[in-house]
Amino acid sequence: MMKWNRSLPNGTKDKLFKEASQSHQLETLVNRHFEGRGYQRIETPLIEFEEVFDGMAQKATSRYRFFDDQGRIVVLRPDMTLPVGRVISTTGVIPPVQLSYSGKVFRVNKGHSGEYNEQLQAGMELIGYDSLKAEMECLINAIALSQKSGLTDFQIELGHAAIFQTIMAELALTGKDEEQFKWLLQSKNSPGMQTFLIDYQEYELYPLVSKLPRLFGTADILKEVACLTSNSRILAAITEIEVLINRVKQLYPEQPLTVDIGLVQEFKYYTGVTFKGYTDQSPDCFLSGGRYDKLLTEFSADPVPAVGLVFYLDRIIYIKERKGELRKPQGIQTLIHFEDDCLKVAEELLEREPLSSLSLHHDVSATLKHAQQWQIPRVVWVSQTGISELLEGGGDFE
Amino acid sequence: MMKWNRSLPNGTKDKLFKEASQSHQLETLVNRHFEGRGYQRIETPLIEFEEVFDGMAQKATSRYRFFDDQGRIVVLRPDMTLPVGRVISTTGVIPPVQLSYSGKVFRVNKGHSGEYNEQLQAGMELIGYDSLKAEMECLINAIALSQKSGLTDFQIELGHAAIFQTIMAELALTGKDEEQFKWLLQSKNSPGMQTFLIDYQEYELYPLVSKLPRLFGTADILKEVACLTSNSRILAAITEIEVLINRVKQLYPEQPLTVDIGLVQEFKYYTGVTFKGYTDQSPDCFLSGGRYDKLLTEFSADPVPAVGLVFYLDRIIYIKERKGELRKPQGIQTLIHFEDDCLKVAEELLEREPLSSLSLHHDVSATLKHAQQWQIPRVVWVSQTGISELLEGGGDFE
Repeated sequence: MMKWNRSLPNGTKDKLFKEASQSHQLETLVNRHFEGRGYQRIETPLIEFEEVFDGMAQKATSRYRFFDDQGRIVVLRPDMTLPVGRVISTTGVIPPVQLSYSGKVFRVNKGHSGEYNEQLQAGMELIGYDSLKAEMECLINAIALSQKSGLTDFQIELGHAAIFQTIMAELALTGKDEEQFKWLLQSKNSPGMQTFLIDYQEYELYPLVSKLPRLFGTADILKEVACLTSNSRILAAITEIEVLINRVKQLYPEQPLTVDIGLVQEFKYYTGVTFKGYTDQSPDCFLSGGRYDKLLTEFSADPVPAVGLVFYLDRIIYIKERKGELRKPQGIQTLIHFEDDCLKVAEELLEREPLSSLSLHHDVSATLKHAQQWQIPRVVWVSQTGISELLEGGGDFE
Repeated sequence: MMKWNRSLPNGTKDKLFKEASQSHQLETLVNRHFEGRGYQRIETPLIEFEEVFDGMAQKATSRYRFFDDQGRIVVLRPDMTLPVGRVISTTGVIPPVQLSYSGKVFRVNKGHSGEYNEQLQAGMELIGYDSLKAEMECLINAIALSQKSGLTDFQIELGHAAIFQTIMAELALTGKDEEQFKWLLQSKNSPGMQTFLIDYQEYELYPLVSKLPRLFGTADILKEVACLTSNSRILAAITEIEVLINRVKQLYPEQPLTVDIGLVQEFKYYTGVTFKGYTDQSPDCFLSGGRYDKLLTEFSADPVPAVGLVFYLDRIIYIKERKGELRKPQGIQTLIHFEDDCLKVAEELLEREPLSSLSLHHDVSATLKHAQQWQIPRVVWVSQTGISELLEGGGDFE
């Protein structure tokens, strides 16, 4: 029988050296940023009952499911927002509260999507805030952290769940029609949409919906929408987007902020403004978020206004790698060989010298070979008679 | 039907605020320490084929098992050392290499052991080092990091896998006898051991084995062992322990280092010195490690000398909590209420003031209520006319 102990399951991978250190540093950077703004950390288990995630729409991915020791079905969490909803609705934590988190989520990707099944995420949840200031806080964190992550040329795209919901309510589509409508929107298929809407020309929202596949781009689109409909919910939605863009521009006047009026909302729990971050290197967003004022009702608690934002850290690393911007961690510059009774002096030297490391080899020859293999330019020898240079910066290796 | 979305599976828990932030800070501290000593980070998946862990002894815990999308049995990793062994034996990484890692491991604890099934660990693996300097490096990291973690009054206990293996080879116990012998050792049951060994009095190791349950304590025990046996493997083992203790004392003369000659080795992959860290607050060790020169043969690769050390970070947090040493993160001291068009000034103030946070409420009354709820002593108001104090350090709340 074939032994599987030298292989990895589909959709998983090892991260080594540069990649591992970059993703951990990014996680630390995001956490420190949130801490600096007064967020409180939350950690929920990786294993949860599947019912916690009933609020998620069905996606092209499925879940890791298994049994706990009581025979009940549990999953590896596919999302971090719903567990936060569970915590808020079942513990004594009283909103308003600003939470931050980081950790792994799990989604079984079908076939060769290129995405790994374990994804590192970090994010924030503002629970108990009904003001647009909460969306603004998400957006300025989105921009600040994308910049701190070293991303360049990214854009933030805004949408609004109420627009999509209002349209779906008027059209009252079901089954295959609903799927086709969503597909036409997602593929920005204008001619297809015209044909699809042939029987809907009398509808109040027809002028807007018929143009929906091309209503994306700069904030000027918002004015066009205002000319296409007088539906109060939709007008209120575009006003919210407009106000937010103007506020964020106070702090980031140069940051590209785009809108997509025809954005199909993947998660049914969103109720207001939604946002996603993109770069040219990937069709997948590297951040997403939005307002979800009804999330807590999933857990039979009263509705609480809330806004959240999540960063897909592995996607950010992938983007930086594709752009050749993954900084190589600076290697060790000094290797310290020491005699057994000179540990104290060696440790003091290690402390003093930046980018140094103790050699853990007994023989000097092994230390020199090690320096050669790992391209360490300098080797010093600590002995009872003092510290001497065995190999000085970039010298010849024997 | 009962909905489970408000509950947590057995053995899991949420970490909130102080606890979440402490365990994340501890993880960051340990990683930064290793990085500063020149270690390279490795991250392996949480999901692995079960065969990777064949090298582990059966324990009182079991594993989370499930199927991947190809119908093969996978587990949530119960250990981090074996995956590192898999990586070294299957990728192009050529030892010697100093690796560090952090992340979750999963063990299903039976009944009410009090341990959670998801445990945060961080550790190091020195692969390709045959010198005792590698054990020494583990021990000084063990002590340095325990101190940095804020642990006080901890002790490090040393053992040696060769002692247990030599004894087991001579006694040639099987089945129930083997179990009983281990149990007598673990429970330090001297009279029981005398009775058990009644038929073994002619054995070469009898003088040593009969005293084994009480051969633990300070380093003086090592001299006693040397008088009880002339077995060369065992004498070599105690010499290694003695040498190590003397070396570590160079750096940490005050650190209690104890020995346990009769230590039962839980993991069959250990081959040399082993170590564990304890405090009075818990019977479980908060760190463990040792030499495992044959680990890679589990993966049909040639043996490579290696030493590893792991910290059980959740146990360290638990110990500190029991001792009342869990530092409360310093709360927000200044809450910044701002008018919508004053975001830029508010952000500059946030940057400038330590422990400050933006208020994301629209109304000042909500901001003041928030400050009261979260015990924030100071509230400032940023408006077009300037920055004014709404509530000054520890004042009355209306």
